[in-house]
Amino acid sequence: MIKFSINKAFFLQSLNITKRAISSKNAIPILSSLKLEISQEGITLTGSNGQISIEHFISQDNQNSGLLISSPGSILLEANFFINIISSLPDVTLDLEEIEHHQVVIRSGKSEITLKGKDVDQYPRLQEMTTQNPLVFNTKLLKNLIAETAFAASTQESRPILTGVHFVLQNETAFKAVATDSHRMSQRQLNLDKAGDHFDVVLPSKSLRELSAVFTDDIETVEVFFSTNQMLFRSENISFYTRLLEGAYPDTDRLLVSSFETEMVCQVASLRSAMERAFLVSNASQNGTVKLEIKQGQVTAHVNSPEVGKVNEQIETEELAGNDLTISFNPTYLIEALKALKSETVRIRFISPVRPFTLTPGDASENFVQLITPVRTN
Amino acid sequence: MIKFSINKAFFLQSLNITKRAISSKNAIPILSSLKLEISQEGITLTGSNGQISIEHFISQDNQNSGLLISSPGSILLEANFFINIISSLPDVTLDLEEIEHHQVVIRSGKSEITLKGKDVDQYPRLQEMTTQNPLVFNTKLLKNLIAETAFAASTQESRPILTGVHFVLQNETAFKAVATDSHRMSQRQLNLDKAGDHFDVVLPSKSLRELSAVFTDDIETVEVFFSTNQMLFRSENISFYTRLLEGAYPDTDRLLVSSFETEMVCQVASLRSAMERAFLVSNASQNGTVKLEIKQGQVTAHVNSPEVGKVNEQIETEELAGNDLTISFNPTYLIEALKALKSETVRIRFISPVRPFTLTPGDASENFVQLITPVRTN
Repeated sequence: MIKFSINKAFFLQSLNITKRAISSKNAIPILSSLKLEISQEGITLTGSNGQISIEHFISQDNQNSGLLISSPGSILLEANFFINIISSLPDVTLDLEEIEHHQVVIRSGKSEITLKGKDVDQYPRLQEMTTQNPLVFNTKLLKNLIAETAFAASTQESRPILTGVHFVLQNETAFKAVATDSHRMSQRQLNLDKAGDHFDVVLPSKSLRELSAVFTDDIETVEVFFSTNQMLFRSENISFYTRLLEGAYPDTDRLLVSSFETEMVCQVASLRSAMERAFLVSNASQNGTVKLEIKQGQVTAHVNSPEVGKVNEQIETEELAGNDLTISFNPTYLIEALKALKSETVRIRFISPVRPFTLTPGDASENFVQLITPVRTN
Repeated sequence: MIKFSINKAFFLQSLNITKRAISSKNAIPILSSLKLEISQEGITLTGSNGQISIEHFISQDNQNSGLLISSPGSILLEANFFINIISSLPDVTLDLEEIEHHQVVIRSGKSEITLKGKDVDQYPRLQEMTTQNPLVFNTKLLKNLIAETAFAASTQESRPILTGVHFVLQNETAFKAVATDSHRMSQRQLNLDKAGDHFDVVLPSKSLRELSAVFTDDIETVEVFFSTNQMLFRSENISFYTRLLEGAYPDTDRLLVSSFETEMVCQVASLRSAMERAFLVSNASQNGTVKLEIKQGQVTAHVNSPEVGKVNEQIETEELAGNDLTISFNPTYLIEALKALKSETVRIRFISPVRPFTLTPGDASENFVQLITPVRTN
């Protein structure tokens, strides 16, 4: 029967990480539970929503944890409720002790709270994975490439495969992440330091966003393992499992054309601000587009919403070359594309008013490329 | 036709204050507009939702405003939309100019936005008030007494009068604010520095909460004026009108009994924390009450939710006198009452398990008194 004491703040931090995998409105009621497993070495917290699962280990060797285990065991507790109780405790430490019938007594200061739990046998088994030959990612790099791509995935379930991000490793070290909702696309490429086996998988963009929140910046590297239907991201204390999306991802390489007719470089911040004003006015009308006009060395953006009003913006450019062109598109896509760019300037290349245009960082590095499809207005 | 230029940040601040009176989902569509009136002296912004109305004056004499008026006039603009546009402008200043057909052109940096407005004749007239012999409140004092009482008003429309706060002035300087939802009551009394005429009104608690947000702490005093159906709070630049609730407010004085059988004083923070834990567990069961037991010099709090678990809390007291007593109540009411107390300690006085108990600041000042009705559990 479980018995341990622990620092409240430390415990709470670990609980909150694990909670990210737990939904209180799950179709499988038992998944609203948190699993606590106490061994002589430490505590393993497990949470899952069927799509993602998180295992968080608190080692008794960790000085900050204040963890002192008197007796091992395991139990299921209603996650939200348990975490709220822990966070409301009066003292800096707490004792947790299991009593008969899967109940735990939590003591802290002058407070004593008894909670009903459940037998761990009721919890579904997580699928096991072989953990050999990991791919190793720098955590920051991994989180950056998620931030650069996941937003471009579809949020609609009409084509489920497009709600994911396509991860591909080719030629041992050439890694590529790409997402598209069929209106825009974002692709990041990078070279891994260590060679890995070829893979080609699609990860739910939702899982990737949770992953970014779970692996904090103090965790330097993350090991990555694959199986046919899931992927494991692992640091010293955290194992993050996510299911993969099934199906073939569309061929996005054919969308990237290297020729172009018109090219401009401008400041990300001022272009974004101009597009935000354009969005405000365009959003009030039905077509919701902005018209970009490149003419005689001048770039201007126009919106005309008969009901509401008009916007005219002069866009300052640092470079401008090629043919004159007028192209219409949804300003939201350009705003989101610019948000994903870390660089100060952006290079935009146009082929024609009816062909997608590309965005790359202003320094012309092609490892991060985005694509936006125009809207035909006549 | 309007023409002026103004500092963007300053204008935005004034717009956001006025916006507090404007709802985009009003039954009267024209009330989603903001009224701009420009005179040689400055700009008056007006917003109203029919319940509250705010007039905000920006003086040309205010150095920070950067206001320069070239031509007076007036116009109605869709409030939310206009404010979003202003906040998105690129430069620190903006020019606004009216052109034909109630349109305005806003210029800032390299951006030019044209918005459609409406004729001010379409805007309803605010009811005028005679502004003589104001009552003068210290702003902080006024906001404090709102924070101490408004939360206790009812949120249900079944007895509309209870959604208000009762303001009464008697004997020229004796002011009282009281709110009750029939389960609990909160009353603040204070003596005004300057004598005023007798009044007895009920103000919507919602209006009072907006008022607290509108009059910032840098405004030292607020003048108050009454009419039969509305009340005006006025500072140098802001006029805040609210409708009064109609009907007789129940007699709350009879609820305050001076005799008691049991009295305790304890720390607000630790009692509140204990009640928050009690709430977490009690909230999971149907009756949702906590049982307070005063017995042989000990105070304990108990919750027993058969489905979920139990709470036992020892409550430390600084003073404890009188008869033993066991009383049950909804911990939410005690938590909210303790939140409203600015003092470190609270004095609680009980008459019997079936009679309301009172809370006052620990120093026994009776100018702020709260009352909570127990729940009969058997």
